Amino acid sequence: MAGRTRRDEQVGATREALLDAAERLFAEHGVHAVANRQISLAAGQGNNAAVSYHFGTKADLVRAIVRRHAERIEVGRSRMMADIGDSTELRDWVACAVRPVTEHVEALGVPSWYARFIAQVTADPALRALTTSEFAAASPSIPTLQQGMGRCLPELPAEVRDERAAMSRHLITMMTAERERALADNSPTSRATWRGTANGLIDAVVALWQAPVTRED
Amino acid sequence: MAGRTRRDEQVGATREALLDAAERLFAEHGVHAVANRQISLAAGQGNNAAVSYHFGTKADLVRAIVRRHAERIEVGRSRMMADIGDSTELRDWVACAVRPVTEHVEALGVPSWYARFIAQVTADPALRALTTSEFAAASPSIPTLQQGMGRCLPELPAEVRDERAAMSRHLITMMTAERERALADNSPTSRATWRGTANGLIDAVVALWQAPVTRED
Repeated sequence: MAGRTRRDEQVGATREALLDAAERLFAEHGVHAVANRQISLAAGQGNNAAVSYHFGTKADLVRAIVRRHAERIEVGRSRMMADIGDSTELRDWVACAVRPVTEHVEALGVPSWYARFIAQVTADPALRALTTSEFAAASPSIPTLQQGMGRCLPELPAEVRDERAAMSRHLITMMTAERERALADNSPTSRATWRGTANGLIDAVVALWQAPVTRED
Repeated sequence: MAGRTRRDEQVGATREALLDAAERLFAEHGVHAVANRQISLAAGQGNNAAVSYHFGTKADLVRAIVRRHAERIEVGRSRMMADIGDSTELRDWVACAVRPVTEHVEALGVPSWYARFIAQVTADPALRALTTSEFAAASPSIPTLQQGMGRCLPELPAEVRDERAAMSRHLITMMTAERERALADNSPTSRATWRGTANGLIDAVVALWQAPVTRED
């Protein structure tokens, strides 16, 4: 029984090391440019086939990285959403979209790679298709969050609402990746703290949801 | 002399065919996943080394694609900026940031690949580093555009101005890529026309520039 537990721990540690190495290599070089063999080596695995053994294909590994972070962000988001209850303040709901992400990336320390990895996944058609259902499964509070925002702006046409939801996602993803990159490179950042970046995002996202709607002509 | 001209035309046509094939393959599979040899074949070149011969490395090819589109977008932007002169209406300047891009992608027809290619380049650290100076060289009107926006909001702190400029760029890039992908896949789009997408972007970008600023705490 003790032997079995120790073996489980070793397997868990190896998997974590592989995920860490994969995130870093993917963020630095691009997901497609990195071979499973390089990830196994970077994780200190003598066996070149460690990725295949523990995760299967590269697609499975990408999904495992998405799941690992999305699950932790979900914990923070659910807690914040429980705190605001049925608020009708748009800013409360936008904060629930922004802060759990910036707080998660901040908690990863410097350097981190997750935010840049997710920005790549969003922009790459193949990776995006791979991870959509994984992300949704690990983020069950998001539909409720979107409904909460919608209730604050009941007069917004459905197609504009969907468009602004996509804009909000892109802003959060890309600006979080920009700050992560700047911190990792020791480049200047527009804000001194992650909290400042979150405030800047919340200001912008609230404003774009409230913008007057110009109809197509 | 006639022979020389004909040879120049052939070289020009081959280069265009290689750029077209590269854009498509890069957008569909990711820049890193595509080999120069595949691009030569897809462009109908019997010679596997056609990319190396005409462009050099893959990095040179990526830069050539960026230049080809940035130059055409620059023409539209310069013309729009000449029309608005020294306007102090923020919406005029934001329109100069948005419409030349959406109008360029619309003019490429369906399917096009450029918007998705640029979204990838933005999110990929190596590609971004490769193309920054190429993009700036082909887009000389952008500093004037940024100054024009800044003059409409003189009270905005410099770091917030830089942050909102980055947000605007990301929104334009990612939302243009989303619409291009939807049109190419024959998926539903939130707006019926590119003009509608441009209006939605202008509404959002104007609002985020005008948002009240929450200071860091």
